[in-house]
Amino acid sequence: MFVAGNRRDGTANLNAVDAADGSELSPGFVTATMQDVEDACKAAADAQTDYAGRPLAERAAFLRLVADKIDALGDDLTQRAMKESGLPEMRLNGERGRTVGQLRLFADEIENGAWQSLRIDHADADRTPPKPDLRLRMVPLGPVAVFGASNFPLAFSVAGGDTASALAAGCCVVVKGHPAHPGTSEMVAAAITEAVSEAGMPAGVFSLLNGAGNELGEALVKNPHIAAVGFTGSRGGGLALMKHASERKVPIPVYAEMSSINPVVLLPNKLEAQADALGTAYVASLALGAGQFCTNPGIVLAVKGDALDTFLASAKEALGTTAAQTMLTKNIKGAYDQGAGKLSSKSGATLVGQGAEGSAACGRAQVFTVSAADFMADEDYREEVFGPSSIVIRCADVDEIRSVLASLEGQLTATLHMVEGDYEAAKTLLPVLESIAGRVLANGWPTGVEVTHAMVHGGPFPATSDGRSTSVGTMAIERYLRPVSYQDLPEELLPEVLKDGAAKCLRRVDGKYEV
Amino acid sequence: MFVAGNRRDGTANLNAVDAADGSELSPGFVTATMQDVEDACKAAADAQTDYAGRPLAERAAFLRLVADKIDALGDDLTQRAMKESGLPEMRLNGERGRTVGQLRLFADEIENGAWQSLRIDHADADRTPPKPDLRLRMVPLGPVAVFGASNFPLAFSVAGGDTASALAAGCCVVVKGHPAHPGTSEMVAAAITEAVSEAGMPAGVFSLLNGAGNELGEALVKNPHIAAVGFTGSRGGGLALMKHASERKVPIPVYAEMSSINPVVLLPNKLEAQADALGTAYVASLALGAGQFCTNPGIVLAVKGDALDTFLASAKEALGTTAAQTMLTKNIKGAYDQGAGKLSSKSGATLVGQGAEGSAACGRAQVFTVSAADFMADEDYREEVFGPSSIVIRCADVDEIRSVLASLEGQLTATLHMVEGDYEAAKTLLPVLESIAGRVLANGWPTGVEVTHAMVHGGPFPATSDGRSTSVGTMAIERYLRPVSYQDLPEELLPEVLKDGAAKCLRRVDGKYEV
Repeated sequence: MFVAGNRRDGTANLNAVDAADGSELSPGFVTATMQDVEDACKAAADAQTDYAGRPLAERAAFLRLVADKIDALGDDLTQRAMKESGLPEMRLNGERGRTVGQLRLFADEIENGAWQSLRIDHADADRTPPKPDLRLRMVPLGPVAVFGASNFPLAFSVAGGDTASALAAGCCVVVKGHPAHPGTSEMVAAAITEAVSEAGMPAGVFSLLNGAGNELGEALVKNPHIAAVGFTGSRGGGLALMKHASERKVPIPVYAEMSSINPVVLLPNKLEAQADALGTAYVASLALGAGQFCTNPGIVLAVKGDALDTFLASAKEALGTTAAQTMLTKNIKGAYDQGAGKLSSKSGATLVGQGAEGSAACGRAQVFTVSAADFMADEDYREEVFGPSSIVIRCADVDEIRSVLASLEGQLTATLHMVEGDYEAAKTLLPVLESIAGRVLANGWPTGVEVTHAMVHGGPFPATSDGRSTSVGTMAIERYLRPVSYQDLPEELLPEVLKDGAAKCLRRVDGKYEV
Repeated sequence: MFVAGNRRDGTANLNAVDAADGSELSPGFVTATMQDVEDACKAAADAQTDYAGRPLAERAAFLRLVADKIDALGDDLTQRAMKESGLPEMRLNGERGRTVGQLRLFADEIENGAWQSLRIDHADADRTPPKPDLRLRMVPLGPVAVFGASNFPLAFSVAGGDTASALAAGCCVVVKGHPAHPGTSEMVAAAITEAVSEAGMPAGVFSLLNGAGNELGEALVKNPHIAAVGFTGSRGGGLALMKHASERKVPIPVYAEMSSINPVVLLPNKLEAQADALGTAYVASLALGAGQFCTNPGIVLAVKGDALDTFLASAKEALGTTAAQTMLTKNIKGAYDQGAGKLSSKSGATLVGQGAEGSAACGRAQVFTVSAADFMADEDYREEVFGPSSIVIRCADVDEIRSVLASLEGQLTATLHMVEGDYEAAKTLLPVLESIAGRVLANGWPTGVEVTHAMVHGGPFPATSDGRSTSVGTMAIERYLRPVSYQDLPEELLPEVLKDGAAKCLRRVDGKYEV
């Protein structure tokens, strides 16, 4: 555990567990006291003006150094994360690549500077009344509390997307590490702490706090020095943080990525043409990473008939060759079994097929099918079952598909499978998909989330707490900013980026964009 | 009262009151039932996809038509608003100009199109794994509930800034008219309703609901069809709406502009050089519009000494020639007297001077002075007193000015008066001002709010409920938007603006901005 550059000593009372066999891993880790929370948040607040005021090139260099330090952890990091998460080696190596790639992308983004939304309206002394000189830029909100996610022990944990985007925005960060991978968190936090020191940043820029209970998270969100929250996790967890944040004396924004069942529509002509291949691809997507993705395809909608039967037969066959995979934690596995069990007990739900059973720590892939009427009548079918489970909804026609879609809560993604003959049907569905989801896909599966400029990993509630933002891609930086306008400030006192002769960067000058 | 293009009949049980003499004005107006709320919100939701899907040129033409129709109301509108608000003719003519100017500015902004944040990342099939095609744009949040403000019966009421920015964003609008000016609201709503019809927009784009109690506002915010809220008013009112919004099954964003005391700092060299002129300008700013501006200079901070005494003497003299002005409503006048009375009862507060007393409906301008220590020790001094009242805080030195500033809540504005010799002191204060306010001014008074691109009329809580936004200026459109990403969508199904060959508009293509 690190508070503003200092490793905290104390009683080691948090141990990780080997995800595969449940055995306790060494060493133990110190957990945070309420004093640690206050110290970390106070240090972040004290460092905030200094960090935010550093030239953008320095801030970018700092993020690149963090990436280099994490790269340098190499296989040791992968091995520890494997034990703690049960995720396979290749996946975790890929995730490390994504994590450092993300940091470097945000470093480039910092230097690009367009995220500052620079606007200049020059004065007009001849107007009646005289028009003042006004210049606008975005400034950081202040210290951000980041909650590490269990399902991405690297890419959405200590140095993950929330941390990278907050640091890029100029916000100091206090991370609450996920208790399922404290060793992984410790290694990454040590790397960041080294980078903070070597880059000459104020120590309060980063802290990592450990803890297994809800008290730590609550104290963090309620700490008056904290200005925003980034979270990826369960709906219950996200809702609790939203409540704490809204009840503060000074309410703060919460960006919680919570719950999504990611509808996938198989339009008739496409299904007719490729039922078999679709069935196979579907099972590959839903079983990927033991289904432990926020973008897992939880429901599939299609018009009933022979083609759908072929699809289901193909899915059943693919399930037959799907190995069971270790799930992240005992709690997640327990919740998965409970959710899948609830579905199988429904009279309206028919089991299409199952994957191999595996050990007690493993999640068994399962696909159910249900009629649109039954789906609409029972709220339970809409609940996310986190893991490799999915439901195929048999609809009478495309109109019924649309009705089901329109009845859904907010989603991270919504997908259409189609060929040209389906475009007319697609046009009737697209406005609905846009209104419920943050990302609309064609002819793919939602599980892959590209880290780039045009990505939205977000969506209306309850997919996230705040559908106005994304947690993946460069637009994520905007979450942690607010606008400030400067009126008639003398040139000497203006922020450099707002001076007339500042270095090139996207700006809007007297209404016109200049690149 | 208008629900989706239809004037509602019923019992007329809401009458306006002449602000100057308290007499009841004719005619009476119908108030909204719960069924009216549901009808208006449902109509807005039903119209949403149609309205949002109209070509931007059509949406812009609609806003221009609304402006033309309001212009055509001419002097009749001014006369009615004068009676209902007690505001003078010149001010209301100016406010009408601002209202239609705002609508036309947003019409231009719609066509400019940059607010869509268009981003295109082209596919790369050769990458492993293949990189998808991703395209992002902003889409409207959905129907917006707008609360008319009492202090701007035109510019922040039925067709005011919140309505203009929501309509520009592609959101349908349901307005709750302010009960103090139902006649003004009715005239403007009739103009909008005509424009909706003539422009061929779906009727549900706009509704106006009347009502005097809190139930109407609560029902509106809690209605499941409503996706966001725009409000300008009291802290208590704003907090209540925030609570309703956060307790919904689907929480929604609330943009409430609530409470600000707008600190003004007179730095030593400037004060020394121009104490007399500053005192006169200060009183003119604080008494403008009977002090009924969100940006009224509620506190002034300066280092004590001869120059400050000269400033106070000048302010006292100016107050002596300041006429009393009719306040907006009996409630506002009552709250003003109570607030000013509370200040005058404090042992630490000394009355510097007062304006003329005027009639019972009038607010009397008042300036108090208090030591920094007394100010810091008593929370009461930080409460906004809505009206022509202000406090001058006597500080020991610039460090103490900074301490007082750092102890303040969020503000709409913060101002520095300075000459070159004050720049070093200003540099130590600017980071504090930036952290507490949405707009930082030099050598001016905060009461004027320019409607332009680089304006921020917003600020950290409790100045607003959401410091990430502005309610004045073109950036206000961004409040009512959320991002959607399209992955591998066939060209034929892409929104026009995201096609490769779309008409020129600011876009980010493969990371590069193109204008």
